[in-house]
Amino acid sequence: MSPDSPTPTQDELDLLHYESRIERPVRMKLPEFERNERLRHVIFSGQFSVPMLEDLAGTADKIRILSKMREGQDFLIRLLNHKRAMLYFTQPSTRTFLSFMAACQILGITCNEVRDPTTSSETKGETRFDSLRMFSSYFDLIIMRSKLARLAESCAYLMNDLEASGNRSVPIINAGSGSDEHPTQALLDIYTLQRTFQFSRPQDSPAATRFDELRRDYPDLTKGLSDKVYGFCGDIGRGRTVRSLASLLGNYEGVTLIFIAPDDPTLSLREDLRQRLADRGVRTIEVQSFDEQVGGIPVIEQLDALYMTRIQKEHNQASDDAQFAALDLSRYKLNLELVGRMKRYAPILHPFPRDQHFGEIPSEIDNDPRAVYFRQARNGMWIRAALLASIFGVDHQISRFFHEEYSEWHDYNESPSSVM
Amino acid sequence: MSPDSPTPTQDELDLLHYESRIERPVRMKLPEFERNERLRHVIFSGQFSVPMLEDLAGTADKIRILSKMREGQDFLIRLLNHKRAMLYFTQPSTRTFLSFMAACQILGITCNEVRDPTTSSETKGETRFDSLRMFSSYFDLIIMRSKLARLAESCAYLMNDLEASGNRSVPIINAGSGSDEHPTQALLDIYTLQRTFQFSRPQDSPAATRFDELRRDYPDLTKGLSDKVYGFCGDIGRGRTVRSLASLLGNYEGVTLIFIAPDDPTLSLREDLRQRLADRGVRTIEVQSFDEQVGGIPVIEQLDALYMTRIQKEHNQASDDAQFAALDLSRYKLNLELVGRMKRYAPILHPFPRDQHFGEIPSEIDNDPRAVYFRQARNGMWIRAALLASIFGVDHQISRFFHEEYSEWHDYNESPSSVM
Amino acid sequence: MSPDSPTPTQDELDLLHYESRIERPVRMKLPEFERNERLRHVIFSGQFSVPMLEDLAGTADKIRILSKMREGQDFLIRLLNHKRAMLYFTQPSTRTFLSFMAACQILGITCNEVRDPTTSSETKGETRFDSLRMFSSYFDLIIMRSKLARLAESCAYLMNDLEASGNRSVPIINAGSGSDEHPTQALLDIYTLQRTFQFSRPQDSPAATRFDELRRDYPDLTKGLSDKVYGFCGDIGRGRTVRSLASLLGNYEGVTLIFIAPDDPTLSLREDLRQRLADRGVRTIEVQSFDEQVGGIPVIEQLDALYMTRIQKEHNQASDDAQFAALDLSRYKLNLELVGRMKRYAPILHPFPRDQHFGEIPSEIDNDPRAVYFRQARNGMWIRAALLASIFGVDHQISRFFHEEYSEWHDYNESPSSVM
Repeated sequence: MSPDSPTPTQDELDLLHYESRIERPVRMKLPEFERNERLRHVIFSGQFSVPMLEDLAGTADKIRILSKMREGQDFLIRLLNHKRAMLYFTQPSTRTFLSFMAACQILGITCNEVRDPTTSSETKGETRFDSLRMFSSYFDLIIMRSKLARLAESCAYLMNDLEASGNRSVPIINAGSGSDEHPTQALLDIYTLQRTFQFSRPQDSPAATRFDELRRDYPDLTKGLSDKVYGFCGDIGRGRTVRSLASLLGNYEGVTLIFIAPDDPTLSLREDLRQRLADRGVRTIEVQSFDEQVGGIPVIEQLDALYMTRIQKEHNQASDDAQFAALDLSRYKLNLELVGRMKRYAPILHPFPRDQHFGEIPSEIDNDPRAVYFRQARNGMWIRAALLASIFGVDHQISRFFHEEYSEWHDYNESPSSVM
Repeated sequence: MSPDSPTPTQDELDLLHYESRIERPVRMKLPEFERNERLRHVIFSGQFSVPMLEDLAGTADKIRILSKMREGQDFLIRLLNHKRAMLYFTQPSTRTFLSFMAACQILGITCNEVRDPTTSSETKGETRFDSLRMFSSYFDLIIMRSKLARLAESCAYLMNDLEASGNRSVPIINAGSGSDEHPTQALLDIYTLQRTFQFSRPQDSPAATRFDELRRDYPDLTKGLSDKVYGFCGDIGRGRTVRSLASLLGNYEGVTLIFIAPDDPTLSLREDLRQRLADRGVRTIEVQSFDEQVGGIPVIEQLDALYMTRIQKEHNQASDDAQFAALDLSRYKLNLELVGRMKRYAPILHPFPRDQHFGEIPSEIDNDPRAVYFRQARNGMWIRAALLASIFGVDHQISRFFHEEYSEWHDYNESPSSVM
Repeated sequence: MSPDSPTPTQDELDLLHYESRIERPVRMKLPEFERNERLRHVIFSGQFSVPMLEDLAGTADKIRILSKMREGQDFLIRLLNHKRAMLYFTQPSTRTFLSFMAACQILGITCNEVRDPTTSSETKGETRFDSLRMFSSYFDLIIMRSKLARLAESCAYLMNDLEASGNRSVPIINAGSGSDEHPTQALLDIYTLQRTFQFSRPQDSPAATRFDELRRDYPDLTKGLSDKVYGFCGDIGRGRTVRSLASLLGNYEGVTLIFIAPDDPTLSLREDLRQRLADRGVRTIEVQSFDEQVGGIPVIEQLDALYMTRIQKEHNQASDDAQFAALDLSRYKLNLELVGRMKRYAPILHPFPRDQHFGEIPSEIDNDPRAVYFRQARNGMWIRAALLASIFGVDHQISRFFHEEYSEWHDYNESPSSVM
């Protein structure tokens, strides 16, 4: 071995070990992340099929409604009170972290955390995989977030290998890996859209929902996520939440995705996503402002939903700063005038945090009924709780309890999503 | 706008937004922090009326006694096990933090924490108010401590505004804001005095309490906080706990407050507090040593209770160091001789931590029965639990359970405070 | 007092205060750490007698089996759900920390932590003992790890003194103090050996255990820890886990301890331990490699169990680096060839973390059935839970529940250790 290629560390060898599995197409990997048609590890947003998304939303709705009443809370909090989760967040994230904590707590799961990127064991020469096996010794679930792309995927393979050799193995949930994947963020975005496009309210009687009222003004309006126009605005190129959500929306029939971003190699739609959507026959349109016309109508007036994003300047390369200075980035900010022109029901989403210095969503918009970004965060808690219930196989118990206790809900509304 | 006044950030605008409400007199604000005659937000010590203090002490007593028995513990731990608290402590404080944690845990409340002053979201440009709304999305209560005076108050207004507009809103508890207010510290100080001036013991039969015995030596002694002489010693000027406790004691009849501090603008009684107490007709006396005579008797021999404090040298200005060097600060330290001259029942309190280098209370005093400062800390846990029970409206449930299970306590003693 | 001897701080005085008690022989101290023949404080591994180790293993086995079934979990999680623990870890340790967290959680104990070496109170001049008394005000148990040798022992004396004077006092568990003692690590090492030398499996019928099968190849094999040869390899001099385990094994009949380490004053067996073992009549042998012959047979082929360790280079003195460079440290690494020559049942233990850069156990050995180091970590959780159950006096309750619910286990197997 030449002096130029030093002996690789065990950490490097560990990742190399799974390289060939990582490079397979997603479709080939999916069965390995399931057990008995149930998710075992949650690694990519590509794992979520439309029926699975509908199931998870149904469970999230039930958890949400049960959480409003004392006996429902008591039922939920005992469901998984014998389970212990490890939140291994070496890439900082307050929001995702707290959302998972809350989701665990709703179901009684006890939380433990390691957030320091260099745990004391690693400074003593411990490999990442040894750390992970330690966590799997003490805990029943590992929720992990890392700067290292594909670390979560490798850990899922490690757990599968342990299982195959008769050793202890626990589920892995990817809570964000590098610039790569953040599947549970995509879940909560979808769940927020699912709730919106139910168009109902708890106070609605079975005979008169918000949908009926809206249809007077929007005769072509339908329920559900299909046949809708979704806008994505801002940092399209680097937004991993945009990538995941766009991919999932592509699973629904007749959707149009409009990307509103500057004509800039860093910020605009990346070729790989453009190609992937095209291959699946998804209609995509790229424009440079809300006012640009498509089919003779300004984009802002056509959107059924708008997904705003923050310019992720912390990921800027040296060249980006100069390049961005030449762009008119003010076009990628909302204001009251623009919001006023949107469809009356069209929700505004944002993965948050928003940037007070850039101001992509000024706070004056917060009181508009279209602003759902705070509720979106709370939806994240419900859908993550649903995901945990599904992984541990208690979703059917939730369904059973719900229908026994709340049969009246069931009678009135086909789907419990109608409840706030 | 001139170059000297740059565009304010949203964080600055947010605080400005509530400025006019903050500047109103306290009396006008109180109703906004209550719901149905029950505390909603706990921001100032000025919110606590004498009946409220008596109620909270009664609840704290019951929680304390229930915590001694297995069935009582089981009852308490289920009371609020569906609630999740956020402890948002950007100003460090181990003691207050742990006391709130323990208080939550007694009632089954799950705790979550953010203690880093710069959370990752804030570095991405998130406003404080967006962070707070995130917390209120996931949790049912925010307990906050901040270097920023009035931040807790602003957050209470934010929550009220959200409530008014039909959005999710949670209670705010101020666990210390700037040099300003620390209302739950005042609560625990009062509770420690309330327990002391019951003069009873669990081993006492109904016919013979410690009070009866003490009255032989102190014929004028009465129960309760009224008609007593309270001493405050040390850093009177900067001690926010002194300010809060003195104000609350001013609500009781016939009290005398003696401040024992050097004649120094930083350390002695501030004009605003002197004036406020005078306006309410509270008798205050300022002396420079324990041995100074008032009415012909040295102060130390007249006190019914003594509140010691630490010289907060971490808040010294540049000029203070030189100025303090000229003072005889040894006068503001206790010793065994001084303690020996105090009334036999007079408790010595200290908000803690005490300073081993200054030595305002040397450890040789710890074994004196008048030294209640360690029990004071434990009282903090009970009274904070009582406060949480009151905010979430389960105090009546506690009362009911207590009287069903422990009717014998009720028969013997009018107030359960008689139990250790 | 001369200028050369400044006034000692209260922290220094506090430790001096207990010096004379600390310097007594261990035998004299033991009664002070027990109450009613039950452990009160856990400070040294020397506190564990053989009957106590058997008792703890029995409780750990029962907790382990109960944890596999829903009703067992429900029983366990309610046992101590009214207790609150403080994990005061000013010396970092992820592994021991998480293991204690998990152990607490199994029994429903709520965990709190202080991990920062300088808590905010200490910067305000608070003594360590005041901090400890604060913890004992809020919590029911203190689990502590510190760089300061003997701090845990001093705290146990402080708690005993408080108890004697009628004050609140809680149990102290030493989770590692300086280079000194780490008694619960010794416990988990012993428990791993206890489980191994049961030689049974859950799938075994009462008539055929692994022991019967192994005895065909090893006719002299016996059950239990007595009459066995134990090897310790690597950093013998500085390994506190080696010291504790070797001492405890010395309590069993007819054991031989072989230390495999370089002839180096830092790394080889220290004189004090050599002498202590000799005094108790324990047979010890020191060799410099696995291949060295003892009684005509290479050491590696004689071992009934092998305890590997990491070279603790973070504790190297300046002189050590040069000295170690002259040694052939590759002799203190395992490889597949060496493992292949070991007895078929002989377990390989390691206190972990292992060092990927040194490579004392390369990962290729992980799949060998003799590699028990990952299971060892999980055993740590069970035995620590057993220790907590014993300290809080609920071990008999566990026994009773176990025998009522799982009488069939009891019928088949004298000891539940036979279950994986």
